[in-house]
Amino acid sequence: MVDLWYSEYHMEDVRFSIRVKKQLHSERTPFQQIDFFESDTFGTFFTLDGLMMVTQKDEFAYHDMIVHPAFATNPSIKKVLIIGGGDGGTAREAGRYPQVEKIDMVEIDERVVRLCQRYLPQTASCLEKDTRIDLYFEDGLQYVRECAEGKYDLILVDSTDPVGPGEGLFTHEFYSHCYKALNDNGILINQHESPYYPSYAREMQRSHAKIKKAFPIARIYQFHMPTYPSGHWLFGFASKKLDPVADAKLEAWQKLGLETKYYNAQIHAASFALPTYVQELLKNDD
Amino acid sequence: MVDLWYSEYHMEDVRFSIRVKKQLHSERTPFQQIDFFESDTFGTFFTLDGLMMVTQKDEFAYHDMIVHPAFATNPSIKKVLIIGGGDGGTAREAGRYPQVEKIDMVEIDERVVRLCQRYLPQTASCLEKDTRIDLYFEDGLQYVRECAEGKYDLILVDSTDPVGPGEGLFTHEFYSHCYKALNDNGILINQHESPYYPSYAREMQRSHAKIKKAFPIARIYQFHMPTYPSGHWLFGFASKKLDPVADAKLEAWQKLGLETKYYNAQIHAASFALPTYVQELLKNDD
Repeated sequence: MVDLWYSEYHMEDVRFSIRVKKQLHSERTPFQQIDFFESDTFGTFFTLDGLMMVTQKDEFAYHDMIVHPAFATNPSIKKVLIIGGGDGGTAREAGRYPQVEKIDMVEIDERVVRLCQRYLPQTASCLEKDTRIDLYFEDGLQYVRECAEGKYDLILVDSTDPVGPGEGLFTHEFYSHCYKALNDNGILINQHESPYYPSYAREMQRSHAKIKKAFPIARIYQFHMPTYPSGHWLFGFASKKLDPVADAKLEAWQKLGLETKYYNAQIHAASFALPTYVQELLKNDD
Repeated sequence: MVDLWYSEYHMEDVRFSIRVKKQLHSERTPFQQIDFFESDTFGTFFTLDGLMMVTQKDEFAYHDMIVHPAFATNPSIKKVLIIGGGDGGTAREAGRYPQVEKIDMVEIDERVVRLCQRYLPQTASCLEKDTRIDLYFEDGLQYVRECAEGKYDLILVDSTDPVGPGEGLFTHEFYSHCYKALNDNGILINQHESPYYPSYAREMQRSHAKIKKAFPIARIYQFHMPTYPSGHWLFGFASKKLDPVADAKLEAWQKLGLETKYYNAQIHAASFALPTYVQELLKNDD
């Protein structure tokens, strides 16, 4: 067998590597470099511009945690906007709620969706099957700029890091347009980087500072993500009035009987409890 | 600069690597292979039999979480036994509580202690300075076998993985001797491996099954540890009668005013909330 390794440099002097059985696909689009690989331990996985996005084996943690805390806070979410999330995993989890009427998914790079449909049906097959999902292949910032006011109950920003095509999704302008696109119970969840390695922590601080200016409630929650830098990853929870802990309807969520591999009613509030050093980074975010 | 990398294989096909500026020391003792390295991102770090033990930069997470939850559950802990923990970080954190009268530390390999005193004073300098600490260079299993009944308020098992010299610290015999060595309010905390990669998860299940047989209360809590496999690590909390959540004295702990970089009063209960797949692994541990 050929000795082939995929590596991601979490810092210049720290790297994480996975042995690759086969490179399934490699393509440069107008937006980014896309690569799909096959491995033993993580199954099929894909990278954008060389950075790990989704593996078959640990995507459950990310997709549980980006979707379910919002639905447990507001069980009557009906209209969902996903920005990014081309792999389909976020749409899949949001689609598990029967009361959801509409999931608009705005992904800048159609090729991510088409390749995930070919190589990662585990996350992407819902994109064809679930008729409530509508795909828009356009820029997320442009989409929210032109969006009708109060159109959505929930916006899920499932973006890459704030370099390359994801950059506009970490701006103050983007967050204020999200605010307008949400109704009074509206919730914004966003991929919020990691607190551990300094370069990621800086982006976390910058995003949090901007979201706090756009939304009266802005919290951060954490989870374990084995294939992401340091394994310690964050989402942001911002809203117009709902508090993710005080307003959580956990009994109602449990009654739905959804089977989840990571998220549960105990994890809900617990994930908002942050290590002291993370709390301090978030205080000094200006 | 020479291109020198330390790697740990978390699975046969998954590895984590740190660029090394210099190998500071390498030695084979009767018990294990010890290596010290210098790096940019993680500062000085050392490995036993090639496995990552302690880095200067993220040891705070491990040492906060092995020590403080027990002290916040029982604020009157006076007599502490540490098994392993040759780097001194666990003794350092336990020594921060003024009411502690005695810390007996039983480390099988004196060379770990002596080398940490030379290369890692950040964790090891307390071993000379804190006169409440007594060092015993012997086998931990043998020590608890011969220990007087009810001698300790707290036992902290800061061990390597259950292969090599740490093996005896993952046996039913060890846990039952710990039970006897503890008084009625006694608490046992142990390094409990990771739930993510299958080989670690199996050890987690095996230990938990054994501890549950020896102690009426046996819980698991989690934290983020960037340099350990998957970044998702666990400790076990076992006790004769104290429940780590229901009996926690968090206000009393906060009044002590200890500065901690990871642990805090919110993290305390939150760390006992486990992802669904971990809960399920712990149920099926027989």
